[in-house]
Amino acid sequence: MTENNTSEFLGRHLGPNDSEARVMLDQLGYATIDDLITAALPADIALSQLPELPAPLNEYEAQAKLREYAEKNVEKRVFYGQGYSDTITPPVIRRGVLEDAGWYTAYTPYQPEISQGRLEALLNFQTMVQELTGLDIANASLLDEATAVAEAVGLMSRAVKKGRRILLDARLHPQILVVAAERARTIDLEVEIVDLTQGIVGEDLVGAVIACPGTEGDLLDPTAIINDLHDRGALATVTADILGLVALKSPGSMGADIAVGSTQRFGVPLFYGGPHAAYMAVTDKLKRQMPGRLVGVSVDAEGHPAYRLALQTREQHIRREKATSNICTAQALLAVTASMYAVWHGAAGLQRIAERVHQLAAQLAASLSAAGVDVLHENFFDTVTVSVPGKAEELVARAAEAGYLVRGIGTDKVSVSFGESATEQDVAALAGIFDASVVEGSLAIPADLVRTEAPLTHEVFSSVHSETQMMRYIRTLGDRDLALDRTMIPLGSCTMKLNPTAGMEAISYPGFAGIHPYAPADQAQGWLELIAELEDWLAKVTGYAKVSVQPPAGSMGELAGLIAIRRYHVANGDEGRDIVLIPQSAHGTNAASATLANLRVVVVGTAADGSIDLDDLDAKIEKHGEHVAGIMITYPSTHGVFEDTVRQVCKKVHDAGGQVYIDGANMNALTGLAAPGEFGGDVSHLNLHKTFTIPHGGGGPGVGPVCVAEHLVPFLPGDARDVDPTAPIAVGEGVPVAGAAFGSAGVLPIPWAYIAMMGAEGLKAATSYAILAANYVSHALKDAFPTLYTGENGLVAHECILDLRELTKQSGVTATDVAKRLVDYGFHAPTLSFPVAGTLMVEPTESEDLAELDRFIEAMLSIRAEIQEIIDGKISLEDSVLSHAPFTAPAIAADEWEYKFTRQQAAFPVPGLRRTKYYPAVRRIDEAYGDRNLVCSCPPPSAFDFTEES
Amino acid sequence: MTENNTSEFLGRHLGPNDSEARVMLDQLGYATIDDLITAALPADIALSQLPELPAPLNEYEAQAKLREYAEKNVEKRVFYGQGYSDTITPPVIRRGVLEDAGWYTAYTPYQPEISQGRLEALLNFQTMVQELTGLDIANASLLDEATAVAEAVGLMSRAVKKGRRILLDARLHPQILVVAAERARTIDLEVEIVDLTQGIVGEDLVGAVIACPGTEGDLLDPTAIINDLHDRGALATVTADILGLVALKSPGSMGADIAVGSTQRFGVPLFYGGPHAAYMAVTDKLKRQMPGRLVGVSVDAEGHPAYRLALQTREQHIRREKATSNICTAQALLAVTASMYAVWHGAAGLQRIAERVHQLAAQLAASLSAAGVDVLHENFFDTVTVSVPGKAEELVARAAEAGYLVRGIGTDKVSVSFGESATEQDVAALAGIFDASVVEGSLAIPADLVRTEAPLTHEVFSSVHSETQMMRYIRTLGDRDLALDRTMIPLGSCTMKLNPTAGMEAISYPGFAGIHPYAPADQAQGWLELIAELEDWLAKVTGYAKVSVQPPAGSMGELAGLIAIRRYHVANGDEGRDIVLIPQSAHGTNAASATLANLRVVVVGTAADGSIDLDDLDAKIEKHGEHVAGIMITYPSTHGVFEDTVRQVCKKVHDAGGQVYIDGANMNALTGLAAPGEFGGDVSHLNLHKTFTIPHGGGGPGVGPVCVAEHLVPFLPGDARDVDPTAPIAVGEGVPVAGAAFGSAGVLPIPWAYIAMMGAEGLKAATSYAILAANYVSHALKDAFPTLYTGENGLVAHECILDLRELTKQSGVTATDVAKRLVDYGFHAPTLSFPVAGTLMVEPTESEDLAELDRFIEAMLSIRAEIQEIIDGKISLEDSVLSHAPFTAPAIAADEWEYKFTRQQAAFPVPGLRRTKYYPAVRRIDEAYGDRNLVCSCPPPSAFDFTEES
Repeated sequence: MTENNTSEFLGRHLGPNDSEARVMLDQLGYATIDDLITAALPADIALSQLPELPAPLNEYEAQAKLREYAEKNVEKRVFYGQGYSDTITPPVIRRGVLEDAGWYTAYTPYQPEISQGRLEALLNFQTMVQELTGLDIANASLLDEATAVAEAVGLMSRAVKKGRRILLDARLHPQILVVAAERARTIDLEVEIVDLTQGIVGEDLVGAVIACPGTEGDLLDPTAIINDLHDRGALATVTADILGLVALKSPGSMGADIAVGSTQRFGVPLFYGGPHAAYMAVTDKLKRQMPGRLVGVSVDAEGHPAYRLALQTREQHIRREKATSNICTAQALLAVTASMYAVWHGAAGLQRIAERVHQLAAQLAASLSAAGVDVLHENFFDTVTVSVPGKAEELVARAAEAGYLVRGIGTDKVSVSFGESATEQDVAALAGIFDASVVEGSLAIPADLVRTEAPLTHEVFSSVHSETQMMRYIRTLGDRDLALDRTMIPLGSCTMKLNPTAGMEAISYPGFAGIHPYAPADQAQGWLELIAELEDWLAKVTGYAKVSVQPPAGSMGELAGLIAIRRYHVANGDEGRDIVLIPQSAHGTNAASATLANLRVVVVGTAADGSIDLDDLDAKIEKHGEHVAGIMITYPSTHGVFEDTVRQVCKKVHDAGGQVYIDGANMNALTGLAAPGEFGGDVSHLNLHKTFTIPHGGGGPGVGPVCVAEHLVPFLPGDARDVDPTAPIAVGEGVPVAGAAFGSAGVLPIPWAYIAMMGAEGLKAATSYAILAANYVSHALKDAFPTLYTGENGLVAHECILDLRELTKQSGVTATDVAKRLVDYGFHAPTLSFPVAGTLMVEPTESEDLAELDRFIEAMLSIRAEIQEIIDGKISLEDSVLSHAPFTAPAIAADEWEYKFTRQQAAFPVPGLRRTKYYPAVRRIDEAYGDRNLVCSCPPPSAFDFTEES
Repeated sequence: MTENNTSEFLGRHLGPNDSEARVMLDQLGYATIDDLITAALPADIALSQLPELPAPLNEYEAQAKLREYAEKNVEKRVFYGQGYSDTITPPVIRRGVLEDAGWYTAYTPYQPEISQGRLEALLNFQTMVQELTGLDIANASLLDEATAVAEAVGLMSRAVKKGRRILLDARLHPQILVVAAERARTIDLEVEIVDLTQGIVGEDLVGAVIACPGTEGDLLDPTAIINDLHDRGALATVTADILGLVALKSPGSMGADIAVGSTQRFGVPLFYGGPHAAYMAVTDKLKRQMPGRLVGVSVDAEGHPAYRLALQTREQHIRREKATSNICTAQALLAVTASMYAVWHGAAGLQRIAERVHQLAAQLAASLSAAGVDVLHENFFDTVTVSVPGKAEELVARAAEAGYLVRGIGTDKVSVSFGESATEQDVAALAGIFDASVVEGSLAIPADLVRTEAPLTHEVFSSVHSETQMMRYIRTLGDRDLALDRTMIPLGSCTMKLNPTAGMEAISYPGFAGIHPYAPADQAQGWLELIAELEDWLAKVTGYAKVSVQPPAGSMGELAGLIAIRRYHVANGDEGRDIVLIPQSAHGTNAASATLANLRVVVVGTAADGSIDLDDLDAKIEKHGEHVAGIMITYPSTHGVFEDTVRQVCKKVHDAGGQVYIDGANMNALTGLAAPGEFGGDVSHLNLHKTFTIPHGGGGPGVGPVCVAEHLVPFLPGDARDVDPTAPIAVGEGVPVAGAAFGSAGVLPIPWAYIAMMGAEGLKAATSYAILAANYVSHALKDAFPTLYTGENGLVAHECILDLRELTKQSGVTATDVAKRLVDYGFHAPTLSFPVAGTLMVEPTESEDLAELDRFIEAMLSIRAEIQEIIDGKISLEDSVLSHAPFTAPAIAADEWEYKFTRQQAAFPVPGLRRTKYYPAVRRIDEAYGDRNLVCSCPPPSAFDFTEES
């Protein structure tokens, strides 16, 4: 150990410096950190040499290299469309949300009391989507438009149990057709890609997805199709452009059951394809089938309205293989951005933008027509497609030369799609490419498709008109939440570590943020080089042959990995292998992903020490024999332990002809020390938003690269643009799991910077320090809250499960009570009751310094003393501070103090709080009330008029 | 009036939208806003046509243009030196401080209870400077190194009253020599620019300024010179490089009385010359002579340590023409940045940086020597100067071609100065320019100049080692303060309006931030064009012939303007004109500036209605006749009124042969409606950080352009690089008032963006709305707190003075009590007791919406009711909530409530606070205690150990 060199990033990333690490090691009784790791990590998986990564760069060098990459990309004026539009991110939102650590370092709002700000912003998002789509209920975002359509198909098939046929409008964007069709086929639906205007034939229908508008920009009235579907007992999903909805009749008003689309063009940069928040809205009767997060309104302990996630029983983390989706992380940060954009512009502003976009498109169409160019569609919103037989490529090239990116469709069509920044000068320039001059245009939206409902009537969309108001609204909401910029977030399995600013800054570089996903390679060289380098580094770190960063979240990484396994078996003629073994302690996502991959789940039990029960594993293998597709394990397990049997487990499954999927959720305990591809995995996915420092963003974006061994390389995700949607993807080829080739490319500079600045030694050090911190906390709390499972030498891996069950028995205090009480100490709670009910799982990460770890330990010990008072009969459970936590500022200031504990005890139980105190915006939330009284759009402001004293 | 167009910036800048403006106008009884303006503004100054500005751009267009300008600048690797060094801004500090609205929109910390965060950061700055310079006390920054040396000269001359001779080391940077010499000559000191190593001769000495190191990088031991000076009763000022101090013996340890320099290279971008925080440290016995802000430690009402500005009685706003300086705004934001950089790197990190810089420089020197190049100085820290007779230009050009900016000194020398980002590759490339190869270097700091004192021993400089800690430290401090991002700051005369993010973002563009001030014109085309355009626009808006943006603060603008007046008279042979008439109500800066310009101040009285007493003016003109250099008025006056006699005043002074200086402090009441250059002014300065939206930054940066009529154009500030310091500047030429030609160039994209996005109509609208808002507040509070002065039709201009004196008589409640109580309502107080003691001056600005104005009015009316309770005898003054305000969170949560009012009344007097509540970090601060017990460096952490209950 040498003193941290402050000019290097590693010393900045690690929380403890050398002297602090010394203190921690002394507590644990180890001479060096290597000794600790040797004691904790099974010898048979320890890497014999570090991954071959370049020498680490410092922040300055990494940013210089990132600028170089960004500058290698060529920024054109973007008129490409196909689901990704030019938009203007309002600077006040870029700075206040996308670039603000308070927003981007926040976790998914499972703990609603400290998440009221982002929950309000997400509720605005839902309200916005509901109003624009004219449907009853909208979720808080999905991963991208293509996967959202796939989710809609899944939803329809769950809701219409008797049917198996799905009709996909041939006018959908090609990438959507590919992703949705293949996802549907994977779960054995029959997919037909058809011209829906030609009438629907046949029985056994689940539903159809109708493109409004089509990929060429053409508008049609879907009412007749929808009615026809309904008459046949099928459902109708409409894909709609979020800006178009401001001007066009809503899907809901035309009878659609489901509407999906992207909200990217509401202020979210193109980001070379993502991350962008997709939306989904449904009718009331479908709400319990809806995938994804849903924010709802409930009440707190004082009866005031309060937000929290609603209907969580639909979700993978509870419902596992029966969940409505495998999505865990969505696109919260981007949904917040889009919702803020709607608040910023309001109904009137959005109407002006939509109108201008339409007028400019109409002007171009008229100009081209006048010049004799064959404009293909009479009705359109923002996109003009022309027929230019044999000349598409040449025209696209001419446009590029003039500084424009337009879309060539095959050899014979060119499409020009208008975005927010378009001007009349652009129309002239674009017309010029076709040798046309500008003439006046006339409106191209047929009267019966013109929107008549007022959009965005909720008061929040007319509450802000000035930048000052917007700045304060963003800050007011952000301040309600506890994020990493104020406290450690010791969330087991979620790795809330530092998100380095050096990487974060890069995603705003215009050369990264402004590139369309379908820009040709010569305009995206910087992106392509960065991505190739990152994929290569990730492969080296994980010990796999190849990596694809396409999956835009861990859930999609899992799906891609399981599909690869399934296809590998099929390619080998082992079609019968459709069972995936999943240990009891697995993340719910695992099971839900298996369902999406059309695999059956068989659960493997847990031994007394928390490890996989090898006997049960043998029994299950024995029982299912040649049906075993593989096993899906998390390593170290979700019990926070390095099981020393992992090689055995892998061998058993391999011997049975199965593949081994190692969930990378806990990669933060392995990086640089062990590699799943090396100790037995055939496939893994990573969570770049955990181990590789992409921030959680309050519930997204995530990035979930899939990593595979050599024999699975052919089954890595393909590029949707290369695939013909009309036929099933051949067994030996890759299945795209997102619309854009590189998924959430826009945030990849963050993990790139992280790995570039850490180097192999740095990654190893980070992992070692994460293990050190977890063991330090586990050790310090061992008498107060014993750690449930430990591995060799009584050590945990990078997290520890604190077992409260005995205390609960003695005192009645639950793990939830402790979680809520931690808010009063200024902490986000650890992971609650996962993977074991009645426990708290603590993952301090390598980024927390000793003082912060000690502050947490102090809080936990103080809470333990509060519990002891109950056990000792000094106060009843009902009267205890634990039962009433957390406390708001008004509650503490109430003139009548109705409690048996003091105000000091409630608000300032430890002295450090006197220097910095966080008060939550609400008191404990009644979760059940909200599900009984489901409200998922913004309540009127009067609901918050609590003028009386608490 | 049409509805605000949300796609345009104007509607974003204005607080009230049209319907809100309607409500406000109805209250005031005017049909239109133009009617209101017609009624408020004297007809004889109203512009007949708007300034000729380009049509307004929207945010997107403005940023596109700014990017274009930034990209026109050529970023080289900067090895130029001469007071401006390459440095690396840590991303976590850039994002957390320089780009964070909470930090940059804060006001100067006159209200310490809501400023504890930035006061702590500035105290860190002072502690850092004290420790590095080895002197007793440091201030909280000065404007730039050149003016700081000028201030040091002024200080020495005040302290050594008997002398008149000042010796300036010929080795000082040329721009420092020019600025300091001329400032000294202006106050009639005799300046000699000498080689101090040749011994000091003669009597009548004030002191000397010694360059350590010299402009060529050469080091000398100043001890003998200092001793010689002291023996002669003179003082010694040493200029020192802040990074060099980490490695070199401190000026204090060598006997210096004063140390000055720049802290730019502690993480602050080059910014094409500024803004950068200069520093000054002095011995204890000189502390009361020190110019600039000084943060000190005092105690709050509970006895806890608390920060506030110390020794304010030295300053211009209190001491006027007898002040230690005319500086008002300094460089708080940049000082905070530099202090955070020191916290970030700590002593060990800074030592590593200093060492590396030195080693690389030594390596280059050795390499050049080995190749036969004549290296001029044996001893140096970071700068190597070589003799290359006749070849300097060619070598500079070769360097430029290789991507390097190095300094040519005359025709025969080239100087290469190393900064933080320099690498061995740079050494090789630079050596290559001289056809040299790299050899090993040896240290070039003589043993007796090597620092032996440990630098930065205070615990704060070793408290942070990880990025996570830094992020949280920045947030913790920022959260203690109330800035514009949370509340209106209704500060009369200070115009705390929106700082548009679109402009703010641009200052971080690398093409702006990374340019050295002495980069040749062909590398700074973008800057030059932007600045020329801005100066032109400002001239049009003010009605003057020409503008210089050089003055880096309003104080320097005033000085430049007064110097222009003085030189004009001298040029005309009117040397006797040395009296400047200043109305009673003037800003203290005016008088202090007059002193610096060596003008005598004669005060003109105020009439009963608050306007200038014309009879007294006549009398003073009569009395001083041909000694009258001019008058310095503020318009509208600091009484917040459009006096209708301003043309008369101007005429009277002109008739007496005087010039009219119109202070632009209140330009926010004129822009687009009237132009000082048009209604009688010969010269004005502007405050770009007020009217033109540069943020206040917690007390700087400011930019104070000087604007002059045609006949004064020759007297505008010159470029220090063009001036020979050895002789007084000829009467007909411009006097530089800052080291860099364009002063605080780095922030000029902000006013550029503001004007570009507003256009002439927009500027007029902003002014009109500012006047509307002030009158709305004045009207709404007329019965509770009557406005002291009004103009025509009972209207005020853009601010109103609320007169509390009668209430104070009746109740004992002071304006200070009201100011402190406003904190509990979540507001920053209005301007307190300026320009009239016992009053509050409110300037709401155009950027506050109606709801925020009403929230302020509600708070004021609620406070008025609290006062009434005292008047009515319901509670005594001592027992009242007003006497005990403000309240901290721990105070409200105290178990024993010792007050006669309730907790609710203390903390939640109005219901809106239940939704968003700000608690100050400390209770009311004992200002006097701190001056009696002066502590101006960080107290030890134990001082904050208040573990007991309040």
